[in-house]
Amino acid sequence: MTSDQHPPHGYDDKKDQYLKRLRRIEGQARGLQRMVEEDQYCIDILTQVSAMTKALQSVSLGLLDDHLSHCVVDAARAGGAESDAKIREASDAIARLVRS
Amino acid sequence: MTSDQHPPHGYDDKKDQYLKRLRRIEGQARGLQRMVEEDQYCIDILTQVSAMTKALQSVSLGLLDDHLSHCVVDAARAGGAESDAKIREASDAIARLVRS
Amino acid sequence: MTSDQHPPHGYDDKKDQYLKRLRRIEGQARGLQRMVEEDQYCIDILTQVSAMTKALQSVSLGLLDDHLSHCVVDAARAGGAESDAKIREASDAIARLVRS
Amino acid sequence: MTSDQHPPHGYDDKKDQYLKRLRRIEGQARGLQRMVEEDQYCIDILTQVSAMTKALQSVSLGLLDDHLSHCVVDAARAGGAESDAKIREASDAIARLVRS
Repeated sequence: MTSDQHPPHGYDDKKDQYLKRLRRIEGQARGLQRMVEEDQYCIDILTQVSAMTKALQSVSLGLLDDHLSHCVVDAARAGGAESDAKIREASDAIARLVRS
Repeated sequence: MTSDQHPPHGYDDKKDQYLKRLRRIEGQARGLQRMVEEDQYCIDILTQVSAMTKALQSVSLGLLDDHLSHCVVDAARAGGAESDAKIREASDAIARLVRS
Repeated sequence: MTSDQHPPHGYDDKKDQYLKRLRRIEGQARGLQRMVEEDQYCIDILTQVSAMTKALQSVSLGLLDDHLSHCVVDAARAGGAESDAKIREASDAIARLVRS
Repeated sequence: MTSDQHPPHGYDDKKDQYLKRLRRIEGQARGLQRMVEEDQYCIDILTQVSAMTKALQSVSLGLLDDHLSHCVVDAARAGGAESDAKIREASDAIARLVRS
């Protein structure tokens, strides 16, 4: 990619940060398996699942903010059908996020 | 554990099923890291995060149902302060789940 | 209803409290209409919708806690198919709540 | 407002539609009070609260889509600090919505 091109995604400069958070989430999924294997108490497992869900949700909100700041702003400036399509796509992603 | 004791948790007979689902969720967390490493499009990553959140939510709802069916029912039958404490604890877990 | 019968619902002694909260929520719905009529700013309206959603969610969690404490505990003590049916019904209500 | 000014909000041409939906939601809040007054069953009330929450959520998602399509797109085209501030504000509203 040459330096005057837009990156294909909005999270480019935070890639390492997202990878770190996703590795921690992967670790939480392994921790949950250990809890089930060791017959730990349902409520304690549920507490960990809630913590993991919150961590995932926070990744989603970060990605969405990066997407709006870069991809959607760029498309809005370019204008036309591309702009409308990007807004449509972002709204659909927000709806999936709110309903999940 | 002797045969006349209650198991310490409600998901006892579904342990393998939960482990299988949690391993799949761990795989989804690894898949997300791959998507970020390969610079995939934000919206496609968000779609996968939503799918993973739904899978986690479904594990929570399963664990909660098992907990109500076993631990809470047993405590209600035993009665007294233990029964009230279990209901309180279950309600708190439901609130964390609804708010996460 | 004679005094030795269970009430048909779990929120009996908190009826006035729930009515008060629901009247406040009705007032929030009217406030939102006023905001739209007065062309107020989208983000300010969204903030009010979030507050109203939180108030509704809190009513749900209260009703669910009352339901578990009374109806589900009574059914668990009675035992049998009725107990299983009540747990099933409560789990379904929790799932609708978590997914809404 | 003169015809060459931007409207102060993004939902301008859907005002009647939003008012209609909010009036229906106000009616749902009144219906819930009637259910509580008539001592209806907790689970039936919870089902109606879930329906009302979904209706509110759908109003939120509509307002947010209108806001992105108009206010955010306009700000992105204007550029500068105003653009960044609008994105920040929209992301915060999305986070409140996801977490409520």
